[in-house]
Amino acid sequence: MRKNFGPKTFLYPMPVLIISTYDENGVPDAMNAAWGGIHDTNQIGICLGGDHKTVKNILKTGAFTVSMADRDHVIAADYVGIVSANNVPDKFARAGFHAEKSEFVNAPVILELPMTIECTLVSYDEDSGYMVGQIVNICAEESILGADGLIDLTKFFPITYDSVHHGYYTLGERVGSAFSDGKALENK
Amino acid sequence: MRKNFGPKTFLYPMPVLIISTYDENGVPDAMNAAWGGIHDTNQIGICLGGDHKTVKNILKTGAFTVSMADRDHVIAADYVGIVSANNVPDKFARAGFHAEKSEFVNAPVILELPMTIECTLVSYDEDSGYMVGQIVNICAEESILGADGLIDLTKFFPITYDSVHHGYYTLGERVGSAFSDGKALENK
Repeated sequence: MRKNFGPKTFLYPMPVLIISTYDENGVPDAMNAAWGGIHDTNQIGICLGGDHKTVKNILKTGAFTVSMADRDHVIAADYVGIVSANNVPDKFARAGFHAEKSEFVNAPVILELPMTIECTLVSYDEDSGYMVGQIVNICAEESILGADGLIDLTKFFPITYDSVHHGYYTLGERVGSAFSDGKALENK
Repeated sequence: MRKNFGPKTFLYPMPVLIISTYDENGVPDAMNAAWGGIHDTNQIGICLGGDHKTVKNILKTGAFTVSMADRDHVIAADYVGIVSANNVPDKFARAGFHAEKSEFVNAPVILELPMTIECTLVSYDEDSGYMVGQIVNICAEESILGADGLIDLTKFFPITYDSVHHGYYTLGERVGSAFSDGKALENK
């Protein structure tokens, strides 16, 4: 038996995207967004209401970064989702974050978060709030890289957002291999 | 020290979305997509190339469902991502899936996958392949609901896709509460 919930904004897993920008004076900001994902090859898409300081900044600078919130920074990640820089101009510093300007775009890399997607603005739809960013570079702390030099989920612990119970969850164990496990059914 | 990877399509966590449709003869199909997420309130967005049988079906029926792949169906979920219904018309059955028509839209609910988002087509951009769907209903098996009647991540085990190492991962433990944990920093 299935239960119907009607139209709801539920999907698993949702990311916890920490979007960071500079304002016109170079003051860094950050916010937390769960509505988004990959838009296309080397492009990210995120739903962001136009009232956010983040959106105002992006429309001025044409750039932003997106860091994955991780297990060690749940409080800071949640804080930047609760408080608006429209009211708390130093929320970035209050979160305990430190910024270094991206080598590639006019936006901050948050030093505390070990993986960052660096983007330029492709488009922003004011009606829906849907923003598309071009991924210009991805950078990651060497501490989260495996022996193969790539991001390694045994060293990096991004979190996910459960919109049903408003919880943050880590990712768990590896349970399969993509483009591989399904081959077992090919000749059945 | 950070390592630069250049422009890459990496993001954590990516979902494993099993998109299901009917063709003009009512034959069910399913495919696996990781590039997508919530587009806006009660809307989902997914990047889908126009060659997919799924896309051809959606443009005819105006409807699709999106089920979350889960831990117990990794092989089937991966299989529908490897094989195209353009070449294997009965891939849905070969995956071990059984369909029941959605109560709300002209698309199949996959009985084996316990949570399904039922959608009508809002828009499809042929250039980018970006599709937006209106969430008309979400249904879930009672076996994955908690005592509060809601989807419960101690009973439901959606998986996530790691595009770096092509792995599937379960979600892990709860590590925080959204709109709550961050309050610890509000008065610091």
